[in-house]
Amino acid sequence: MPFENDREDLVEGRNAVIEALRAGRALDKIYIAKGETDKTLGHIASRAREAGVVVVEADRRKLDAMSATKAHQGVVAIAAVREYCSVEDILALASERGEPPFVILCDEISDPHNLGAILRSAYCAGAHGVVIPKRRSAGLTGIVGKTSAGAAEHIAVARVANLPAAIRGLKDRGLWIYGTAADAPKTLWETDFTGPCCLVVGSEGEGMGRLVREACDFLVGIPMRGTLDSLNAATAASVLMYEVVRQRSKG
Amino acid sequence: MPFENDREDLVEGRNAVIEALRAGRALDKIYIAKGETDKTLGHIASRAREAGVVVVEADRRKLDAMSATKAHQGVVAIAAVREYCSVEDILALASERGEPPFVILCDEISDPHNLGAILRSAYCAGAHGVVIPKRRSAGLTGIVGKTSAGAAEHIAVARVANLPAAIRGLKDRGLWIYGTAADAPKTLWETDFTGPCCLVVGSEGEGMGRLVREACDFLVGIPMRGTLDSLNAATAASVLMYEVVRQRSKG
Repeated sequence: MPFENDREDLVEGRNAVIEALRAGRALDKIYIAKGETDKTLGHIASRAREAGVVVVEADRRKLDAMSATKAHQGVVAIAAVREYCSVEDILALASERGEPPFVILCDEISDPHNLGAILRSAYCAGAHGVVIPKRRSAGLTGIVGKTSAGAAEHIAVARVANLPAAIRGLKDRGLWIYGTAADAPKTLWETDFTGPCCLVVGSEGEGMGRLVREACDFLVGIPMRGTLDSLNAATAASVLMYEVVRQRSKG
Repeated sequence: MPFENDREDLVEGRNAVIEALRAGRALDKIYIAKGETDKTLGHIASRAREAGVVVVEADRRKLDAMSATKAHQGVVAIAAVREYCSVEDILALASERGEPPFVILCDEISDPHNLGAILRSAYCAGAHGVVIPKRRSAGLTGIVGKTSAGAAEHIAVARVANLPAAIRGLKDRGLWIYGTAADAPKTLWETDFTGPCCLVVGSEGEGMGRLVREACDFLVGIPMRGTLDSLNAATAASVLMYEVVRQRSKG
């Protein structure tokens, strides 16, 4: 996950981070210098975990690179553009709208531009929410908010510790899980998306992880000409989302 | 159009640019310092125009900002990842494949990431080529090549001086011209794309220009939920392209 300059969403230094936690500010992640056994940093870490904020141990050089003030005192937090919600909230929105659930689940989308693009398309396509993993994923940071063209302020985003477990939970609630694969037996147009559905978006480099792929009920293919293996992750997700919209709008 | 660092595609200084022109290297654009009446720069400009390379007069500060060596001597060329082709070449490819033409026309897509994404999707969807304007558009630069994941090396890209004239030319060859608009009377799913077609992609901020919009035979809408006006330009283009593929694959 690259760090960009001009980050308005950085909270640096011990007091600033403690204050942000105390105020209940939406935080995406807290980076704490690796190997620090310092009491205050320990206090920040435990307070953050209580608040459900992801705490990541990072190399001091990584903190230096992220820091704008160069006075981070071993801790840098990244503010979220809004609060995360729960998977339950997403399903409640579907039910409130009287629609079969339409959920997007991102398997380790680490590029904030791709996550932003997915949020924008999901919001425009009328999906009820997006599920991302707590680790190895971009979060609701400023760059994601900007790339989403404001959609990040509207679309519900839930963050989960374990994607396969989240998928099992969605299956228990009656959702069908659809992943894309180059070797899928059916195309997206031959697949029925009119029921409660969750589309899984594989990561840019690797596609879906093995456990996530195995948890899919259906693998669907997007026909490809030429010599490339795949569309961009956000593009593939958008093409799938609008196939869901197409099928549902016929009814 | 933002300039990014680490540009491997810059050719700087008088001798280097003259040499690139002499060698017939594919160049996207040549920037020449505004107000320079110098003989060598004049020679470069006329030689470039003969070779069909776009010459842009730029502020010296802009050249300084682009320059990696800081020794540009008033001229910076940007290499193209490959040669441009002609609209004729694109139509010839369609005929060679025995398919109704499927062309993408980009109306001033200035963000190289968006153009790269469009090239990638166009190539994967089996379009025969992409038409871009010579001015106010990203070209086949290194960033576009990178974002296209290699598609820029394969898909035919034609550059034209005048988009409305290019559209008239395509109409004369029997293509139907489709643009997207929020207020379009029909959705993409209610529109027939099985004939010879050209999809027009509007620019990120402004959508299609007036003349281009008026030249369209059909305006089509992509249904939108929520409060945003539009999808990302490359995403909208990709959703449309795959609707073309869907309709044609039924056939």
